[in-house]
Amino acid sequence: MSLLLVSKNRNLKPYKEALLELDPNLDVDIWPGIQNKERVQFAVAWRHPANLFDGFPNLKVISSLGAGVDHLLSDNTIPDDIQFTRIVAPSLSGQLADYVLTAVLNIIRKTDRYLDQQRRAIWRPLDSIKKDAIAVGVMGLGAIGEKTATRLRDNGFNVNGWSKSQKQIDGVNCYRKDQLGSFLAQTNIIICLLPLTPETEGILDLELFKSLKKPSFLINVARGGHLVEEDLIYALDTDLISHATLDVFSEEPLPESHPFWGRDKITITPHIASVTDPKESAELILENYKRMLSGMDLLHQVDREAGY
Amino acid sequence: MSLLLVSKNRNLKPYKEALLELDPNLDVDIWPGIQNKERVQFAVAWRHPANLFDGFPNLKVISSLGAGVDHLLSDNTIPDDIQFTRIVAPSLSGQLADYVLTAVLNIIRKTDRYLDQQRRAIWRPLDSIKKDAIAVGVMGLGAIGEKTATRLRDNGFNVNGWSKSQKQIDGVNCYRKDQLGSFLAQTNIIICLLPLTPETEGILDLELFKSLKKPSFLINVARGGHLVEEDLIYALDTDLISHATLDVFSEEPLPESHPFWGRDKITITPHIASVTDPKESAELILENYKRMLSGMDLLHQVDREAGY
Repeated sequence: MSLLLVSKNRNLKPYKEALLELDPNLDVDIWPGIQNKERVQFAVAWRHPANLFDGFPNLKVISSLGAGVDHLLSDNTIPDDIQFTRIVAPSLSGQLADYVLTAVLNIIRKTDRYLDQQRRAIWRPLDSIKKDAIAVGVMGLGAIGEKTATRLRDNGFNVNGWSKSQKQIDGVNCYRKDQLGSFLAQTNIIICLLPLTPETEGILDLELFKSLKKPSFLINVARGGHLVEEDLIYALDTDLISHATLDVFSEEPLPESHPFWGRDKITITPHIASVTDPKESAELILENYKRMLSGMDLLHQVDREAGY
Repeated sequence: MSLLLVSKNRNLKPYKEALLELDPNLDVDIWPGIQNKERVQFAVAWRHPANLFDGFPNLKVISSLGAGVDHLLSDNTIPDDIQFTRIVAPSLSGQLADYVLTAVLNIIRKTDRYLDQQRRAIWRPLDSIKKDAIAVGVMGLGAIGEKTATRLRDNGFNVNGWSKSQKQIDGVNCYRKDQLGSFLAQTNIIICLLPLTPETEGILDLELFKSLKKPSFLINVARGGHLVEEDLIYALDTDLISHATLDVFSEEPLPESHPFWGRDKITITPHIASVTDPKESAELILENYKRMLSGMDLLHQVDREAGY
């Protein structure tokens, strides 16, 4: 039996080391250095090469290395009987909540404009946006979305939440799927934390931007595929959206020639809102690996039909 | 009886309007339009002209328009029998706590460096600073300092506090005056919220910077006079301090030729960390004005000897 770690763009050595520290008897391969394909029963994947998982006759489980599983769901060559799981780590949701809180605070305190004034040695106080004059709206109320919503609430913001099924969160106005219009009409700062599925792809479009309360702001920390990029450009140019903070993009790294780079109404970060910690991840991976070996139910199973 | 509003650099009309809305019978003058000097018993001042308060025979109280009173204490021409008070408004401490939280989050998330990379279309993830690897330290634990310390604590930071007298705040390691060395040795991000007094003037100097835990960062939201500016330049140049966020300066507006403007290790804002709200201030001013008329003790009296 062996455990395989796969990624085209991540250094997986710290993950292997963390796993072996927890259990020195583990047999861990890092792609492409696979000793014996028939021994692999459990894989951990982040941006794996296409068709890779078609050749492992005894593979039972693939765990995403993060919270998102769209990279697994979109690969039709993975056999149907392979179970998907994901990593739901407290530090991931904490980091995401921090990133969003930072972005929201920078929006209301106009950090970007002060930095621009500083570059030109201009001393000019600007009106800040009062917390009680606006509301933030979190799309997606899973573990990460709920943590983000409650952190914003605890910091004095009016918080709306929108999710597929009705949720109940203290001090958060929760809307369900068919109430999107009411949710948007009450929201100034829209925060996307949705899973990427055929249903949510392109949800951040011109129609949505038009439905938001003014002034409107966008924070996307989910996936680039949620956003219709040309609609955002149009919305910024016409002041439908005052500012966008983006951590994810349809193509990553964002190409040097992409029009987003040069816009002062867009704040870009290179997909760093949350980064999995090898030690914390290793514990969660090992737990599920042992559960698989014992035939127990896995933690954080993914419903391949629902898409998350 | 009349109430006088004085400031060289603030528009006081909204304050007069807010006062008259609360009590239409009030007699409110805005400097320099004073109808009768002998009628003035209560003044509200922010950066008043020198010597102004020497010519009001019936003046009993001067309230600062903010939390700081150094502009009153440093004016030796104000008669000794005039009582000083200040405005302690919940929104002031909330705004300050927000400003500091924003600055701390931007430090650990390296916002400035990402904005710089964005300007050059560079996609490069950087290691963030982990919350549990550092501690913040709040100097001054009055109403604003305590609010700031608890907000940082509630957002998952390790928080130290330092004050003249020993304080007890849940989840905050409180040090008293003679424990400055231990406080600094345990603090990475130093946050100055002290009143400006002869004792605290120039406290943010090279010796203090050297005593901080590395990496070290400075946030000054108190007064420009707390900081020895040339010591900060030296500390930044020698990496004793990694970054400074400054909202206050010895000369405001900060002169266009000042060396702080051009430094990418300094973030400058134009004294906007907290701005008094006319409506909220008017209520507090009126309360003390009525207390004075009735001969009651005033709220938020200033100990002219202690300096706050």
